[in-house]
Amino acid sequence: MSETLERRAGRPAKNVLNRELILATAITVLNRTGPEDFTMAALAKELGVKTPALYHHVGGKNDILAGMRQFVTAGIDYEVFKSLPWDEATIAWARSYRAAFAAHPYAISLLATVPVTGAHPTLVMYEEVSQGFRAAGWPEGKIVSAIVALENFILGSALDAVAPPDMMDPGDFAGEVPGYTQALRAGESTEPRMSRADQAFELGLAALVAGLAGLK
Amino acid sequence: MSETLERRAGRPAKNVLNRELILATAITVLNRTGPEDFTMAALAKELGVKTPALYHHVGGKNDILAGMRQFVTAGIDYEVFKSLPWDEATIAWARSYRAAFAAHPYAISLLATVPVTGAHPTLVMYEEVSQGFRAAGWPEGKIVSAIVALENFILGSALDAVAPPDMMDPGDFAGEVPGYTQALRAGESTEPRMSRADQAFELGLAALVAGLAGLK
Repeated sequence: MSETLERRAGRPAKNVLNRELILATAITVLNRTGPEDFTMAALAKELGVKTPALYHHVGGKNDILAGMRQFVTAGIDYEVFKSLPWDEATIAWARSYRAAFAAHPYAISLLATVPVTGAHPTLVMYEEVSQGFRAAGWPEGKIVSAIVALENFILGSALDAVAPPDMMDPGDFAGEVPGYTQALRAGESTEPRMSRADQAFELGLAALVAGLAGLK
Repeated sequence: MSETLERRAGRPAKNVLNRELILATAITVLNRTGPEDFTMAALAKELGVKTPALYHHVGGKNDILAGMRQFVTAGIDYEVFKSLPWDEATIAWARSYRAAFAAHPYAISLLATVPVTGAHPTLVMYEEVSQGFRAAGWPEGKIVSAIVALENFILGSALDAVAPPDMMDPGDFAGEVPGYTQALRAGESTEPRMSRADQAFELGLAALVAGLAGLK
């Protein structure tokens, strides 16, 4: 779906007004306006059409937010919970989840704070993941907290994945923070073939999964 | 510092143009424009002054980004690493870190992706935290990855902390996702005095700290 959207987004809007183009354009507009100031009128203007024309294809702002979530999360693999042990499934799911949001970093803050109510594909994902946790022996009362804790780590890691490689560099202050600078340089040479962000994600994911397994 | 800034931000700009007011206003403008489209001219316009007047108080865009980080992170308590064992210190630091960013959620994406280079107070924090990890026996090559993994979880959790309480509600689709809905309801009644977001944060933080301790 992503590929289709990106290809169509390059064509003249008038020829192809449809749900996919509207959603792809909505992401651009939302990124500029934020969810509170986003209007159907602003979206119509961006597409070069009149506002009522949009309603032939989408149901309004809430429908657009749900559709945008579907667009961003389409690459997340939750089927792994049907075939792999809990810890392996969680790690595979988390990696695909981080990659999906790292490809759409402007959507992270937005989708982290807009309710999933009405977002059918996301709810189907939660159903599969919940069932995977339950089958692994998780108590009912901790399943959603554990999933949200993982999502919090994943979304923070997706932001970090799109940060510049020198994100953590002390620059001219290196001499004033020698303990930190030493640790930073040691980390760079420990796993030279992994990016700084990938190292942190993989260490944190392994720790979080191991720690959750001990607390369930 | 935060209290002073908020009080001053309400006064007429012309009377109090100074570094603190400029930084507080910059947060508003940055939140609207994003870091790439942020300009000193837009900031001057918002303050009702001419652009050159700003340069009597701040050094330009990079100085403003560093100052904004200082403003948002002023409440983070990293001194705990000097007095508490590693696991207790990490938990106290993480709680204060999440609270600081939950009070400025618009800054999360921005500060997660703008290098800390030149942000002196943040580097001082990393120095203290690194020394705390080192003293607890962490190998040099994993210290920064462990800190960044914690930060990723904390920033994702700060976004979740400002999401609506019904963020995870399936709404009309509850019947289609019964396993998820059951787990969600069980979680709500497990710790009725803690918010949904607090439950997820505390479970994830305990898991991450325990898991990291096992991987160091």
